[in-house]
Amino acid sequence: MAAKKISIVGSGNWGSAIARIVGQNAAAHPGQFDPEVRMWVFEEMIEGQKLTEIINTKHENVKYLPGKKFPENVVAVPDIVTACQEADILILVIPHQFLERSLTPLKGKLKPGAQGISLIKGFHIVPSGGIELISVVIKELLNIPVSVLMGANLAGEVAADKFCETTIGAVDATSDGKWLQAMFQTPNFRVVVVDDAKTVEICGALKNIVACGAGFVDGLKYGDNTKAAVIRLGLMEMIRYAEVFYPGSKLSTFFESCGVADLITTCYGGRNRRVSEAFVTSDKSIEDLEKEMLNGQRLQGPETAAEVNFVLKAKDMEDQFPLFTSVHKICVGEQKPEEFINQLRQHPEHMIQFDARL
Amino acid sequence: MAAKKISIVGSGNWGSAIARIVGQNAAAHPGQFDPEVRMWVFEEMIEGQKLTEIINTKHENVKYLPGKKFPENVVAVPDIVTACQEADILILVIPHQFLERSLTPLKGKLKPGAQGISLIKGFHIVPSGGIELISVVIKELLNIPVSVLMGANLAGEVAADKFCETTIGAVDATSDGKWLQAMFQTPNFRVVVVDDAKTVEICGALKNIVACGAGFVDGLKYGDNTKAAVIRLGLMEMIRYAEVFYPGSKLSTFFESCGVADLITTCYGGRNRRVSEAFVTSDKSIEDLEKEMLNGQRLQGPETAAEVNFVLKAKDMEDQFPLFTSVHKICVGEQKPEEFINQLRQHPEHMIQFDARL
Repeated sequence: MAAKKISIVGSGNWGSAIARIVGQNAAAHPGQFDPEVRMWVFEEMIEGQKLTEIINTKHENVKYLPGKKFPENVVAVPDIVTACQEADILILVIPHQFLERSLTPLKGKLKPGAQGISLIKGFHIVPSGGIELISVVIKELLNIPVSVLMGANLAGEVAADKFCETTIGAVDATSDGKWLQAMFQTPNFRVVVVDDAKTVEICGALKNIVACGAGFVDGLKYGDNTKAAVIRLGLMEMIRYAEVFYPGSKLSTFFESCGVADLITTCYGGRNRRVSEAFVTSDKSIEDLEKEMLNGQRLQGPETAAEVNFVLKAKDMEDQFPLFTSVHKICVGEQKPEEFINQLRQHPEHMIQFDARL
Repeated sequence: MAAKKISIVGSGNWGSAIARIVGQNAAAHPGQFDPEVRMWVFEEMIEGQKLTEIINTKHENVKYLPGKKFPENVVAVPDIVTACQEADILILVIPHQFLERSLTPLKGKLKPGAQGISLIKGFHIVPSGGIELISVVIKELLNIPVSVLMGANLAGEVAADKFCETTIGAVDATSDGKWLQAMFQTPNFRVVVVDDAKTVEICGALKNIVACGAGFVDGLKYGDNTKAAVIRLGLMEMIRYAEVFYPGSKLSTFFESCGVADLITTCYGGRNRRVSEAFVTSDKSIEDLEKEMLNGQRLQGPETAAEVNFVLKAKDMEDQFPLFTSVHKICVGEQKPEEFINQLRQHPEHMIQFDARL
């Protein structure tokens, strides 16, 4: 089997952290991977110098991952077609609002047999209404199979080589599982490959809704029991959402890093939790807090809650997802945060008939 | 059906919190339950007055749950036989080291058809070696069926009426599920009944081992990703332990409050985590820290880790449970805490063959 050539599409904080890992593995396994790993970098000027030039001379993304070195076989390329046209594997790690614009130049330019692996979290909003998985959007844009990688992977900690786990949901785990694992696994970045790609991806999007609920509870000072209940009920709604909208998902996937582990990290450490807590304690709007706490960047949780609510409302299923529904209503001002727990008391989880459950 | 008479065996912090709930429900459903709920109280003198007298006049356990009132239908009784001989349901909530001594007077004295529900966490150590579920010990002592109740239920927060969930593992959920739920459920204490009682109980014991691991990682300052990985790998070992030693356990039970929710609470809020963190940062022994931080009370995690290790060692299965094994070795000084993560790198979870997993 010929050595696979890897390209990374994106060079932000997470893209740069993953480039260090993949670059190191490509160099370490020259028979399996082409050592040169190209990284598409959206060109910008940093103190009068091109970012790609800085990366290729200093081997450091001084803007998005300062202080961490790339292996020298990671090469920054400002043109996306040049970066990707020889690739057997495309690692996609760009903000999802730039997806379509960024990838369009690649249409019809990729090598036959090329595959993608998406590290992009969230849903794509279909302009005509509804939501779509990012992997599906990429697949339709580029006409390649797309696996996904998700997990409890705060980028700064991955870049600092702290031990963690991740989950790859592979389109074809039997044939691709081994090289996918070899491409990403290091002593501190442990990879489990599953064949349930859709579930892996759904977890990465829905967790941010739950994190908002966890933040509300923190803001309301309800304590550890309540927070654990919110996280668990959120997890049950994630499972139920997958069952209803993406049939065939496996319960075991929710025990992987992409499921319970990423949910925990997000509900304790993430910014959705943090801003949602401030939303309760400050009485400011989500937009104002985004400006104040995130330099105007949009928070994913409220956005995903709105997208999911659009779907649930259309199917008359809001009642079956009281946590998702309440998070959305609180974020848009239709409910008070103090109402949140009240919405969970009659949760379908507490109403299941014993014979139905057995 | 005659109204069921409830007795509570125990009156510590958790027993008193649960007595408030059960007392309230018994009073609210006089057709279903006898309103008088007797609570066995180990008699002690508080400033010259008997604790039972204080409880029966002030309706407050001034020693173990000060500031919270019992409903007046909860009656403290100093003699365990008087407290229990008319009961249809015994709620068992005493420290497990006092189990045998406390329950022995009840042998042959219980009403025919009486049932138990155990709220006691941990394993019983069999003097000849090995461990046994507490529910099994109670069943053998009293010759009654024993269900269990476990969940993310820090007693102080339950007593403060903070919203939470719990799990009942019923011996016979189909026939007993409804009244078990009615006995415990309130607007802030939400009950899910499952028929997988052994798994519910195992979760309550094993979680404390994982919490020690979480504490080590906190002490070592490894960050959120690593902590989430430790919690997840701990959960996977809990699942595996149940599979191996208690066949027939259901994966879905680990998603209940007794599983993932209680594990989260314990790994973020509990004292096993707290003392284990101090173990790393202070360089003192577990015994010294127990004296210093817990007034000499024994910590459950290290004890359970030792008991579980005895079993794993006897079956030559330490390698299959590297987290449980390493926690034990660290607690007894056979490994340095700094070795902990190293023990997890080659975890069986990361080694599963793709075809075996699919």
